[in-house]
Amino acid sequence: MLQIVGDALPNIPWEDRPAGCAEPVWRYSQNPVIPRNLTATSNSIFNSAVVPFRGKFAGVFRCDDKRRAMQIHVGFSDDALNWWINPERIQFEGDPEVTRWEYGYDPRVVWIEDRWWVTWCNGAHGPTIGVAWTQDFATFHQIENSYLPFNRNGVLFPRRLGGQYVMLNRPSDNGHTPFGDIYLSHSPDMVYWGKHRWVMGRAGGWQSTKIGAGPIPIETSEGWLMIYHGVLTSCNGFVYSFGAALLDLDQPWRVIARTAPYLMSPQTLYECVGDVPNVAFPCAALVDQPTGRMAIYYGAADTVTALCFGYVSEIVEYTKANSLV
Amino acid sequence: MLQIVGDALPNIPWEDRPAGCAEPVWRYSQNPVIPRNLTATSNSIFNSAVVPFRGKFAGVFRCDDKRRAMQIHVGFSDDALNWWINPERIQFEGDPEVTRWEYGYDPRVVWIEDRWWVTWCNGAHGPTIGVAWTQDFATFHQIENSYLPFNRNGVLFPRRLGGQYVMLNRPSDNGHTPFGDIYLSHSPDMVYWGKHRWVMGRAGGWQSTKIGAGPIPIETSEGWLMIYHGVLTSCNGFVYSFGAALLDLDQPWRVIARTAPYLMSPQTLYECVGDVPNVAFPCAALVDQPTGRMAIYYGAADTVTALCFGYVSEIVEYTKANSLV
Amino acid sequence: MLQIVGDALPNIPWEDRPAGCAEPVWRYSQNPVIPRNLTATSNSIFNSAVVPFRGKFAGVFRCDDKRRAMQIHVGFSDDALNWWINPERIQFEGDPEVTRWEYGYDPRVVWIEDRWWVTWCNGAHGPTIGVAWTQDFATFHQIENSYLPFNRNGVLFPRRLGGQYVMLNRPSDNGHTPFGDIYLSHSPDMVYWGKHRWVMGRAGGWQSTKIGAGPIPIETSEGWLMIYHGVLTSCNGFVYSFGAALLDLDQPWRVIARTAPYLMSPQTLYECVGDVPNVAFPCAALVDQPTGRMAIYYGAADTVTALCFGYVSEIVEYTKANSLV
Amino acid sequence: MLQIVGDALPNIPWEDRPAGCAEPVWRYSQNPVIPRNLTATSNSIFNSAVVPFRGKFAGVFRCDDKRRAMQIHVGFSDDALNWWINPERIQFEGDPEVTRWEYGYDPRVVWIEDRWWVTWCNGAHGPTIGVAWTQDFATFHQIENSYLPFNRNGVLFPRRLGGQYVMLNRPSDNGHTPFGDIYLSHSPDMVYWGKHRWVMGRAGGWQSTKIGAGPIPIETSEGWLMIYHGVLTSCNGFVYSFGAALLDLDQPWRVIARTAPYLMSPQTLYECVGDVPNVAFPCAALVDQPTGRMAIYYGAADTVTALCFGYVSEIVEYTKANSLV
Amino acid sequence: MLQIVGDALPNIPWEDRPAGCAEPVWRYSQNPVIPRNLTATSNSIFNSAVVPFRGKFAGVFRCDDKRRAMQIHVGFSDDALNWWINPERIQFEGDPEVTRWEYGYDPRVVWIEDRWWVTWCNGAHGPTIGVAWTQDFATFHQIENSYLPFNRNGVLFPRRLGGQYVMLNRPSDNGHTPFGDIYLSHSPDMVYWGKHRWVMGRAGGWQSTKIGAGPIPIETSEGWLMIYHGVLTSCNGFVYSFGAALLDLDQPWRVIARTAPYLMSPQTLYECVGDVPNVAFPCAALVDQPTGRMAIYYGAADTVTALCFGYVSEIVEYTKANSLV
Amino acid sequence: MLQIVGDALPNIPWEDRPAGCAEPVWRYSQNPVIPRNLTATSNSIFNSAVVPFRGKFAGVFRCDDKRRAMQIHVGFSDDALNWWINPERIQFEGDPEVTRWEYGYDPRVVWIEDRWWVTWCNGAHGPTIGVAWTQDFATFHQIENSYLPFNRNGVLFPRRLGGQYVMLNRPSDNGHTPFGDIYLSHSPDMVYWGKHRWVMGRAGGWQSTKIGAGPIPIETSEGWLMIYHGVLTSCNGFVYSFGAALLDLDQPWRVIARTAPYLMSPQTLYECVGDVPNVAFPCAALVDQPTGRMAIYYGAADTVTALCFGYVSEIVEYTKANSLV
Repeated sequence: MLQIVGDALPNIPWEDRPAGCAEPVWRYSQNPVIPRNLTATSNSIFNSAVVPFRGKFAGVFRCDDKRRAMQIHVGFSDDALNWWINPERIQFEGDPEVTRWEYGYDPRVVWIEDRWWVTWCNGAHGPTIGVAWTQDFATFHQIENSYLPFNRNGVLFPRRLGGQYVMLNRPSDNGHTPFGDIYLSHSPDMVYWGKHRWVMGRAGGWQSTKIGAGPIPIETSEGWLMIYHGVLTSCNGFVYSFGAALLDLDQPWRVIARTAPYLMSPQTLYECVGDVPNVAFPCAALVDQPTGRMAIYYGAADTVTALCFGYVSEIVEYTKANSLV
Repeated sequence: MLQIVGDALPNIPWEDRPAGCAEPVWRYSQNPVIPRNLTATSNSIFNSAVVPFRGKFAGVFRCDDKRRAMQIHVGFSDDALNWWINPERIQFEGDPEVTRWEYGYDPRVVWIEDRWWVTWCNGAHGPTIGVAWTQDFATFHQIENSYLPFNRNGVLFPRRLGGQYVMLNRPSDNGHTPFGDIYLSHSPDMVYWGKHRWVMGRAGGWQSTKIGAGPIPIETSEGWLMIYHGVLTSCNGFVYSFGAALLDLDQPWRVIARTAPYLMSPQTLYECVGDVPNVAFPCAALVDQPTGRMAIYYGAADTVTALCFGYVSEIVEYTKANSLV
Repeated sequence: MLQIVGDALPNIPWEDRPAGCAEPVWRYSQNPVIPRNLTATSNSIFNSAVVPFRGKFAGVFRCDDKRRAMQIHVGFSDDALNWWINPERIQFEGDPEVTRWEYGYDPRVVWIEDRWWVTWCNGAHGPTIGVAWTQDFATFHQIENSYLPFNRNGVLFPRRLGGQYVMLNRPSDNGHTPFGDIYLSHSPDMVYWGKHRWVMGRAGGWQSTKIGAGPIPIETSEGWLMIYHGVLTSCNGFVYSFGAALLDLDQPWRVIARTAPYLMSPQTLYECVGDVPNVAFPCAALVDQPTGRMAIYYGAADTVTALCFGYVSEIVEYTKANSLV
Repeated sequence: MLQIVGDALPNIPWEDRPAGCAEPVWRYSQNPVIPRNLTATSNSIFNSAVVPFRGKFAGVFRCDDKRRAMQIHVGFSDDALNWWINPERIQFEGDPEVTRWEYGYDPRVVWIEDRWWVTWCNGAHGPTIGVAWTQDFATFHQIENSYLPFNRNGVLFPRRLGGQYVMLNRPSDNGHTPFGDIYLSHSPDMVYWGKHRWVMGRAGGWQSTKIGAGPIPIETSEGWLMIYHGVLTSCNGFVYSFGAALLDLDQPWRVIARTAPYLMSPQTLYECVGDVPNVAFPCAALVDQPTGRMAIYYGAADTVTALCFGYVSEIVEYTKANSLV
Repeated sequence: MLQIVGDALPNIPWEDRPAGCAEPVWRYSQNPVIPRNLTATSNSIFNSAVVPFRGKFAGVFRCDDKRRAMQIHVGFSDDALNWWINPERIQFEGDPEVTRWEYGYDPRVVWIEDRWWVTWCNGAHGPTIGVAWTQDFATFHQIENSYLPFNRNGVLFPRRLGGQYVMLNRPSDNGHTPFGDIYLSHSPDMVYWGKHRWVMGRAGGWQSTKIGAGPIPIETSEGWLMIYHGVLTSCNGFVYSFGAALLDLDQPWRVIARTAPYLMSPQTLYECVGDVPNVAFPCAALVDQPTGRMAIYYGAADTVTALCFGYVSEIVEYTKANSLV
Repeated sequence: MLQIVGDALPNIPWEDRPAGCAEPVWRYSQNPVIPRNLTATSNSIFNSAVVPFRGKFAGVFRCDDKRRAMQIHVGFSDDALNWWINPERIQFEGDPEVTRWEYGYDPRVVWIEDRWWVTWCNGAHGPTIGVAWTQDFATFHQIENSYLPFNRNGVLFPRRLGGQYVMLNRPSDNGHTPFGDIYLSHSPDMVYWGKHRWVMGRAGGWQSTKIGAGPIPIETSEGWLMIYHGVLTSCNGFVYSFGAALLDLDQPWRVIARTAPYLMSPQTLYECVGDVPNVAFPCAALVDQPTGRMAIYYGAADTVTALCFGYVSEIVEYTKANSLV
């Protein structure tokens, strides 16, 4: 039976699978969970990172404002459903040469050892991975960017492997990048990065243009469960769906299984209509270890934040049973 | 008065023209007639070919699965509205060098002499026209592809002309092809094709990017009635509408008339929102000869199958009255 | 206190700001005010120019017909909400070499001295600015195009400046032009144009791809209030929003202020779904001088015409308070 | 017999047609006439305008420097073959708003009434036509740019027509523009321009991508002789050749004849190898009225200046005999 | 020991391998063998097909004229080195619907049974393969185009296989097509074509963009020897080289061997400088059966015709020894 | 007076400045110094790294073979002019996961402390910087790639700065990348890289498309002298020239000066004609400290290796005197 590494989270948001639904994940009936205009200046709130925090919840949120500038903001919630989001963007502490702000988007958050690490797509003469840590979601300490431009979708593993920090990432070009595979890099100190390994590339169908890691990987006895997005190019633009992969526990650049079908594709009105039609883009997942319940937060149409549910064990099974590797 | 060549089909799906509607075709009030998830693995069901079969109805359907792989499936219905679709794709009999499956989409079906012929866009080092026949919709015999890549929208005439099979087709390139005219080819045996003739090209407005034949042409005393799709390129991608043309009975590469306005363009939510927004793409039509009623099946937003109605005689009149040639 | 130059218009369409709304402009609750199929042959009616006329209202409307040909039509209304639009396009009087019709779209109308001037994007070996005048909205006298191709969004100031006519315009290329700044030109006689001045260029976010003037500028004590559209290129195409700028009263190519945020972006279903998703494109504004009420007409999704409201004084304040210059 | 309007120029550079040559124009045996490094800072000297001046010769030359910045310089010569070129670019007098220098290239020079007019491609928020006059080739008075961006190849007629100045020009986009036709505009005063007329567009072969006027048109009893360049796009980039056209004397937007073959295409090493391979681009021509001798100056490979010879009467005959209109 | 099928051709043009040369093919010391201006109207003569004819030689030549129009002309020679080329293009006999001339280029000629067959890239609403036969190089009978557009490089085998004509060809798109593999098609009658088989695709390096068959395949005991061109895309455009492949005698879509290195790439001035730099494009080969000598005619820089030499047996050995399959 | 850090190299290749030459660098009169076919399998030898070695010279050379595969080879010379190049590519020792060979090109070599370091553009799921060391030019030990794809032009400083290795590099995309700035990264151990700093970006003219470091920087009392290439995009493709910059000795991401003009651009036949026309691309420089003589090795037309000469002190002066910063 599948073992999940993690903590109990009894107050995880949850709805049971609807009657008649045979899918591995199902949508929250009250979607979108975060509307586009939750703050006075926000144009859209999506691609957001939620974690348990002091018995309640905190998060880092992508808020595009009405200039359509891309920022990241902190937020808090009692139930992970109703959120207060700070109307001001996060001000990072650190070396001014590094903290100079161009733009930031698509954050992820993970607890490692003694602090929360935040990674995001950070503008610094092109998009790269910004890195910061916090112990209170009040002060954020930004350190060196992990990579040269051009990189996006930097996602840390929740513990060191072989003594080193490990980060999934997606090198590519600037602009609306038409290609991109998932890589993995190592660091002894979160500043210097090396031992880069190619993890997996594009495949057919929904993941034929580019792919990128989503939430923090979940450790299980079958391997690391990585939820990742994939992009298909239709004659009317990009379509963002998401699927799952299992990575080797010790050498996570070895792919054990990977879903040929998507777990979810944009099909509802809030996923298909908005600032960027046809986007479902996951950035965070909450897991309750005893029950295996998982709640995935995903951006919808680059406009709002939505939620869907599933069981870790079922998703692992589905990934193995429908693998293209 | 217009003569239509064909059979009575008293159980054709039908709704009368709504009050106040002055259009040559009108939508079925219960659209979409086939939802995207009719089978357990389907992502979308659209661009489908329906024919009368043993007093009821059969069809070949484009079903993209949740990998977003493109397949064609057989289905059956008592009323041409409620369908059972085989969850497995058609397995073709034939020379393995030809039947090796890459992908297939956008089928058409036509009865000629003693059997049903199926044509579709078949992946064989690029898209070309696959050809197969069946006499029972259970076993399908695939023969040689009609053309080299790159070709799509292969549509057979329902009888030989001058002793030869005749196929409409649309040569172009691979990818999301930005250009394409309708041609017509001859064959003595359904294997070797030649005597290629250019039929018609792009025109203004809704048909300014590329065009392609839709349902099997309908023989009338005024000429062959060809329903065809046209594509306009907006700043947000392709828009697929459809219109009609009349082709010379003996030399069908001579165009007698061709609608300057579209018959139908994507305007409803199910045509405008989906995997590919703004698509109305017809692949089949049922006709009841005595009444002249026609039911057109068309894919909507590359996601679902929809139905619209009209009278052959009215559409022929409309084509002549609104012709751009 | 802000002074507005203009006339009283007590019958201006109007709805008060909804409760809870803090935005500088708000939508009409009955949008869209003009449906796509108001005339028998229209595919869509949008990007339209409305003016007070003999105590009621007249306008020039972009009507794409079902060929998807772009035409401009005259229309009349008692209340500026319910319109009768001539199903035939405007037939211009003038030198046949100039009036030869290819296509026309995106009209603007303005009263100067003794007549109404109509400008529009006119096809003449490429898009340029067509110019015509009328004194009765029955006969329209077309004169020389103002510019060589390729130009769009020609918008006249409502009075001469320094004895000369002044026109905002937006030179660029043909096709779905990916770049374009706002310029301003002078003419002694509406035929010969020169003294071209660059007014403003693209900026970040919603206005990062191209910009173009919208309604006729409104004269105030703080400067000319210019409502203008801006375009952002997402990975799924163009998004058209609009904002505001204040131009120097005497040297209107000097920009005093310009909104960093948009005033309005496409967010409703009628703005996000249609022939071109995600378009809000303003072409006309009515103003009631005593109250400062403004009603802005804008095309939605290149399909229908919508209406929004605001106060000139509030918009001027918002522009200064949120300026990026 | 053909009448040429113009002056005697007995010291025109000249070589007789080589034995065995049947072409309408032939190259100078000492080409290139101006090397790339004639001044200390020049990278290349080409696309240059030469005129008779006080019994000798003067000219305005495109000199790209070693930054590869595009400038125009004045030069003088006793024999029109050996040149001294000022190593500093021309400093224009005039309204600073107009004379602000971005870049300038491809000059033409013409005498009208009482002064020399210089036109060139002038950078002003994009390429447009700069205009200046001089009476001594020492002081140059720059006036308003004739057009909005984007325009190139502005070529004045050598006298007013119907009381107005007339300029050939070539509107298109910015960058390495892939399309462009020749237009003609009128002005009462060299500042305000209007009455724009389309003259001629692309045609097959060597002139299939874009075209542009070259030297000042030469008035003859058969019409204005316009030498113009044409561009073909090979799979390795643009190829610039040149041909000739005859324009109606009174309505010069009427094309009487136009060469289907080129007069000259890049075939020698100095035309085929250089900063831009395969370019022959004419900007000036000297004519000796009594003999009808013509010397055409053209840029070669965007690197050096070359010279070729012909007889006006033969070129006019060739144009009529090989016309594609 | 290698057996070659074919006739003695004692008057084949020939030069022995130069001292110190270790290459499988070597250039003719008097290249180019045909200059660009051999006829009065020719701009360039290249990509030409040469065959033995009545003890001497005949050929079909691509001659672009000074309009840069693409035509094919007949020519004759006593020694296959010095040619007379008809200054008028070939006028084909046949059904006017087929012989309507748009353009033609890149001919091949082959003797089968009782006549010479000519194939070429023929313009017919896009490029396809034109087919004609002659028995005297005076009258040419054009029959149906073999394929729909878009196809190029149609090369017939010199005898029927399995009773059918067999043609190599290269389907792709219009324009400067950036992709293309070699296919093979069958026909019972030279009119209807089917049984299309994919032969081989692009590979690395010099053949990484597209490939196409060159001269008529040469039958040997080791298989059909096919000389073919390959294209590499540098940052400055296309580079055309050529290599060799061995095809199965009975099933020639089976590739036995294929050179990883090129046989020849553009390196001399006449191959690197001209209308299209960096092109070596073979269209014909003469073989003397007893000695195995081969003379390959290839177009150089799309401007002139060049010649190189080799031994069939050595090239076959080289192909096997350096094969990438 | 300028101090140069480095060793005496009395046998540096050298020619004095030609009479009449005022340029800061001048070409070797016997160029190209290495022909394209020096080895039996080479198609071209260019972009090569030369260093003093045991009183003579060694180097690592880019040799594209006749497949047009890109490889790096070792070579030796007594006089740095006449070379023997190993016909087999370098076989690297090391972790097989890293040494798996796809392709390699554009090497640089530098001595640091106790060994030679080789960096090159290394194919590993896209181009990145390969790193290896040798102490004898016989065995090469490859370690981890320094970066994720996509990176090129990795150039090490010849000593540690602040205890860390420092590498110039040029992140960009795959393919014929149309953009790219120079960055600089730090490493404590040659494996983990971080502290990335932006050094300089594109500028006008010859360096307007992309730039990249060339030879190993030369330490002087005025700063690090960096020779770098720049690319201009003409309508016929890329043009590669080179210039120089001075970088701060301690913080080398601070640019002290940078040449607005190029030092050298492709102007000779061997630079303008070849596999990629119009390329001059420097990868190595030899310096004789006592005399300040410098010999720069640069690839010409991506085909051969050429040599040019100059004095370090003059180039530093030229850089300061002609700086664009």
